[in-house]
Amino acid sequence: MKEIAILGSTGSIGVQTLEVVRQHRDEIKVRALAAHSNIDLLEVQIREFCPDLVCVFDENKAKDLKEKIKDLPVRVETGMDGLIACATFNSADTVVAAMVGMIGIIPTVEAIKAGKNIALANKETLVTAGHIIIPLCKEKKINLLPVDSEHSAIFQALNGEDRKNIHKILLTASGGPFRGMKKEDLKDVTAKDALKHPNWKMGPKITIDSATLVNKALEVMEAAWLFDISIEKIQILVHPQSIIHSMVEYLDGSIIAQMGLPDMRLPIQYALFYPERKELKPGERLDFIKLKQLTFEEPDTETFYGLKLGIKAGETGGSMPTVFNAANERAVARFLEGKIRFLDIPKLINLAMENHTLISSPTLNEILNIEQQTYDFIEETIKSGKLD
Amino acid sequence: MKEIAILGSTGSIGVQTLEVVRQHRDEIKVRALAAHSNIDLLEVQIREFCPDLVCVFDENKAKDLKEKIKDLPVRVETGMDGLIACATFNSADTVVAAMVGMIGIIPTVEAIKAGKNIALANKETLVTAGHIIIPLCKEKKINLLPVDSEHSAIFQALNGEDRKNIHKILLTASGGPFRGMKKEDLKDVTAKDALKHPNWKMGPKITIDSATLVNKALEVMEAAWLFDISIEKIQILVHPQSIIHSMVEYLDGSIIAQMGLPDMRLPIQYALFYPERKELKPGERLDFIKLKQLTFEEPDTETFYGLKLGIKAGETGGSMPTVFNAANERAVARFLEGKIRFLDIPKLINLAMENHTLISSPTLNEILNIEQQTYDFIEETIKSGKLD
Repeated sequence: MKEIAILGSTGSIGVQTLEVVRQHRDEIKVRALAAHSNIDLLEVQIREFCPDLVCVFDENKAKDLKEKIKDLPVRVETGMDGLIACATFNSADTVVAAMVGMIGIIPTVEAIKAGKNIALANKETLVTAGHIIIPLCKEKKINLLPVDSEHSAIFQALNGEDRKNIHKILLTASGGPFRGMKKEDLKDVTAKDALKHPNWKMGPKITIDSATLVNKALEVMEAAWLFDISIEKIQILVHPQSIIHSMVEYLDGSIIAQMGLPDMRLPIQYALFYPERKELKPGERLDFIKLKQLTFEEPDTETFYGLKLGIKAGETGGSMPTVFNAANERAVARFLEGKIRFLDIPKLINLAMENHTLISSPTLNEILNIEQQTYDFIEETIKSGKLD
Repeated sequence: MKEIAILGSTGSIGVQTLEVVRQHRDEIKVRALAAHSNIDLLEVQIREFCPDLVCVFDENKAKDLKEKIKDLPVRVETGMDGLIACATFNSADTVVAAMVGMIGIIPTVEAIKAGKNIALANKETLVTAGHIIIPLCKEKKINLLPVDSEHSAIFQALNGEDRKNIHKILLTASGGPFRGMKKEDLKDVTAKDALKHPNWKMGPKITIDSATLVNKALEVMEAAWLFDISIEKIQILVHPQSIIHSMVEYLDGSIIAQMGLPDMRLPIQYALFYPERKELKPGERLDFIKLKQLTFEEPDTETFYGLKLGIKAGETGGSMPTVFNAANERAVARFLEGKIRFLDIPKLINLAMENHTLISSPTLNEILNIEQQTYDFIEETIKSGKLD
């Protein structure tokens, strides 16, 4: 019996993780759930999956939840201490790290220290703190299992292979809802336009990141850490059908690709049961005859220059990916609120990166400080009217 | 240092195997070469690769060769005894079985008995005698490594995976030079038309088999033996670009594909060095941006009904695949000579299969007898004028 904790259970990945659990009730038990503030959904999850421990990050909401579920024998915690309690909950063997944003880093570090395997869906963890996380995983000998479809694909394409034989990684990108458009076309697009992702069902932050291609830059940085490969050896390939989830090219010219329907439950299930594979239920399967074709294009890094900035941040390393990520996170939040325009997102990231003084190997505290400084910088820049 | 024997060194696979050896001279030594009768090319190969032993199957040609290379310290043998001597040559650890036709079966069996690993390029071996070969390989604990690009792809897509998790195998087919044509269009095609394969550089027999799709039926039967899977679980997928060499779908819906340029040196090299991968030299690599697209279609088993007959032969099992294969082999030979028409090939196969009395588990001797009977039946049928 697998026993798991889910950090971010009310988000898109959390909900889909619980769908996988629902299909395999006799093989997985949920021990702990943590959410930010959506206590209505959390209550439903608690009543269905009966965890021993839950955390609501927002203190007031935690109090409300306690009231709602006082009939149940569930411990309710709050804040960072509560998140860490979930991340290190005694009987769980695997922690699904599915929180959005840098809030996920500290609980993930604590889970690794406690010897838990990590099913990692939180990009920020490796992007900003890969130099801390990866050595820690090795020291603690835990499995760091990617949940992202692209990284899961690369992980699967490496099964039974020797990593020293990698020639390059081909990381695929759908191209997002604005593929084929130029800057001129993107001047006035709204959050509503950007939230229409052609293939994947995801949360709003990551959907905007797909539209700007910033998401791919974060994935490149994450892949570099996960697979111990330099950023120059990772090629981004626009593949609008999102069927090939990514590929590995070996030095003999052989390419191993992992494919499937665009369904996040597949990589989630793979991470939960690794190294085993389980029947996918309900099982819609890929039909190549219906599919007819798979196409490939080069990414347009002139129009979507957030991608170019991210690659630059990754190549620079140190604290620069933290700046890139935090600037993007805050800019996207403001774009979703209608406060800035779509093309302001990369503009703001660029300004934040230019303004930053690099630290080559930042501590967790420094990372969190830089995050806050970057948030402040973005807010000031928006207020200052420099974007106009 | 790998030490190898090549049976069929002057054929297409043999020549390309020696190209791979040429690129890895410090890692592979050729100990034995066997050819049917092309002693001019064999002499060149002997002078370049300095084997200890060669076999020329044709006795007169063997005498001629001895005369030509009397300055060299090479043993020259002939006939089946000579082939077996090459297949079991003491210091070779791997035998490349690359002869065309059923002549390859007995030396392959002897090589396995002698504990050699087999790089298998001869389709007839498993198609007709899989029930003998596979248990023997298990008993002798040797590696049976596929050289065919499709089977090498499946083998690679199974790396690090548990075969019990296979949902199905997707075996790709280029569709050959006559893809999209109907029977009406194929009435008058010539051997010259059929020999124009769109993607692969291969020998004439296999190129015709690609045009009739009989090749795919043989590959399905071979895959069933190699990967211990039932024929119903193997789907043929027409993929005209020949970039995806085949795929494995697992029970969780995940599909692992192996891709590469259509270059036989890739699977040959993989088989020779397995489980290691070596840099491919000279290294033209697949470029997805140039490639632009991969397409998929259903095979047209009405027009190319040799494929349907082959699947039926495979499902029937026993001696039926031998009849299918021998009927095809002889019909193709006569087509290449211009004696029969393209559409007569499946017609003759069908007649031979209908005429056959099944043996459920034929011995090697019975297989060879059935082959001869089938040849005779095909010749008589052609002479009888039944095809008109």
